[in-house]
Amino acid sequence: MFKEKKDRKSNEMVVTPWEVSGTIDYKKLVKKFGTTLLSEKEISALDKYSEGNLHLLLRRGLFFSHRDFDWILKMLEKGVKFSLYTGRGPSGHTHLGHLVPWIFTKWLQDIFDVELYFQMTDDEKFLFSQKLSFQETRDFAYENAKDVMAVGFDPKKTHFIFDSQLTSTMYKIAVEVANRVTFSIAKAVFGFVNESNIGMIFYPSIQAMPCFLPSELKGSNVPILIPAAIDQDPYWRITRDVAPKLGYYKPAAIHCKFFPGLAEGGKMSASEPDSCIFTTDTPNNAKKKVMRSYTGGRATVEEQSELGGEPDKCNIYWYEYYLFEPDDNKVNEMRSNCLAGKLLCGQCKKILAEKVKQFVSDHQEKRSKFTDEMITKMIIKE
Amino acid sequence: MFKEKKDRKSNEMVVTPWEVSGTIDYKKLVKKFGTTLLSEKEISALDKYSEGNLHLLLRRGLFFSHRDFDWILKMLEKGVKFSLYTGRGPSGHTHLGHLVPWIFTKWLQDIFDVELYFQMTDDEKFLFSQKLSFQETRDFAYENAKDVMAVGFDPKKTHFIFDSQLTSTMYKIAVEVANRVTFSIAKAVFGFVNESNIGMIFYPSIQAMPCFLPSELKGSNVPILIPAAIDQDPYWRITRDVAPKLGYYKPAAIHCKFFPGLAEGGKMSASEPDSCIFTTDTPNNAKKKVMRSYTGGRATVEEQSELGGEPDKCNIYWYEYYLFEPDDNKVNEMRSNCLAGKLLCGQCKKILAEKVKQFVSDHQEKRSKFTDEMITKMIIKE
Repeated sequence: MFKEKKDRKSNEMVVTPWEVSGTIDYKKLVKKFGTTLLSEKEISALDKYSEGNLHLLLRRGLFFSHRDFDWILKMLEKGVKFSLYTGRGPSGHTHLGHLVPWIFTKWLQDIFDVELYFQMTDDEKFLFSQKLSFQETRDFAYENAKDVMAVGFDPKKTHFIFDSQLTSTMYKIAVEVANRVTFSIAKAVFGFVNESNIGMIFYPSIQAMPCFLPSELKGSNVPILIPAAIDQDPYWRITRDVAPKLGYYKPAAIHCKFFPGLAEGGKMSASEPDSCIFTTDTPNNAKKKVMRSYTGGRATVEEQSELGGEPDKCNIYWYEYYLFEPDDNKVNEMRSNCLAGKLLCGQCKKILAEKVKQFVSDHQEKRSKFTDEMITKMIIKE
Repeated sequence: MFKEKKDRKSNEMVVTPWEVSGTIDYKKLVKKFGTTLLSEKEISALDKYSEGNLHLLLRRGLFFSHRDFDWILKMLEKGVKFSLYTGRGPSGHTHLGHLVPWIFTKWLQDIFDVELYFQMTDDEKFLFSQKLSFQETRDFAYENAKDVMAVGFDPKKTHFIFDSQLTSTMYKIAVEVANRVTFSIAKAVFGFVNESNIGMIFYPSIQAMPCFLPSELKGSNVPILIPAAIDQDPYWRITRDVAPKLGYYKPAAIHCKFFPGLAEGGKMSASEPDSCIFTTDTPNNAKKKVMRSYTGGRATVEEQSELGGEPDKCNIYWYEYYLFEPDDNKVNEMRSNCLAGKLLCGQCKKILAEKVKQFVSDHQEKRSKFTDEMITKMIIKE
């Protein structure tokens, strides 16, 4: 669909809201996108706010970059609370890679006791897909919303924005944004071409809208913090340009790295279902998928004993490090044993597979408590 | 804003939804746009339906072109009623030129006893203007709606679509349309350029939406007839292409010619307020404007007596012919006396000025009966 997809070198880093490929160099990406690496100052502030319970995803650096998060902290010091905004493009079932930023967002909601605006971009996923009907993306939005709630957000402080259930207030904000964004700007940021449909071209206004909706609903300006994977940053770059022209604050953001799938390379992507742990997989199936994961292991047991494994290339290690093993001693031990060739991939897989099986099972139990009706009640109607 | 406005020959015919200029050759325009001239067959059918009370605007040919109006009549014969759809871009106060298609639409509502969907494109007028705020176009929408109702529509069968009060059903239809319209198509029809904002580019979907809304609200397909000036046709050309792909009927249309202002040449346009009769003018001011109108008169009384006037160039004659003098004998007499030099412009102006004064006064009385609250009740909310 987009020009840039053609004529590309095989390993070239490509990061757009629709595509992540090649070898990702996060330092280069931060420079290219113009964001800022999280510094000791922001991290220690979060440590203080969480009373020493810094989230693993932050402590181990999966969340690593930001825009104006220091300003969010300054506003907090002045007594001005922010609202959280994140979202999901409901093009299929939820997988573990989707849950990661939500888990971190829930932690932020807990420690700061703030409102969350969660956008279901069912219009986007219909407009940008050639396979899904609008009804399908709308149905997935409900399914995905149950996964969001299973993560543990406070239902009283969590508000869903379903794009397909757009309200007149939302449309008014989107039109105000659209009026300030020319086709050239949208084209430069998103690579639109003649074949792009006119819904795609308007869509950046709809994705900007939740940054300003809390201010409109409250009647005064509300700082917004967006926790999201860094590939989504271009949307809010436009939003940040437009915000002061419309009299709103620029939204701040806190970015995470991409969550790898179970295959070699690339982020977890629903288009490769075997490399994905879906929240709808049976716990046993999830376990089996982990057992088939790509690892940092060598070709033979002998080689592994002699050379040691490569944890930095290993999905299993990655999952343990960022998500499943909070104990620093244990994770360090795993790493050193692997490097020393004392640990075989089968052993590691088995340990993680049980954890993933339990995680999926627990998640499904929490998820089963949410019905369409409960989600409907949490959708903003005005 | 649009490419085509540059480098144009002074008298070249230009007809787009945003600009009408040059010498209009309606036969050429019908050919260029691909519409069909109304034939004896359609006119006699309307004569029958109105029990011999064919509307002046039709009898004298201001409504002159159509798309699929013959199909609307065939559906009627089968017992399938159509709904009317027309609208207004609320960029200022209403003038006489705006009222003309509404007067005809009211006649159609009366003789066919059908629903009317009236769209207030307050988003469009904001997006395409560099002067008006969104609040201003929204305010004008209410003011204009009172003028619509003053024309005499049945309040029980008249439903307003205020774009700024878009509902989720409306947005869903617009997104379905947008998904079928590429940027190239929109560009070819409307002349969008890099500087066009992304709201403008999406806007054709919003203008298509009311063609399908009655079907969505009713749950089965409803034929739509759009009475409008012919310059608005491009919007529904795209709509007609998309309709069968989405499973709807193509909207039919009945087109009128442009209503001239009081100055020489050009259609009545709010950008030249002195040549416009606004519904908000005092009756006396309206009268004065008519007295200053351009006419088909000669330079001197002597010349006029000798050569006769030129009714075909005369705004006063045009207004009498199409709108204010239903009596064929009287209008023929006026024409022959003018051609024979027996009638001076001052006399004609005086007669019309009194009629216009009365018209404005009557309209204002009817208009005063409508409040914002009454309009709000007629706006589609679901």
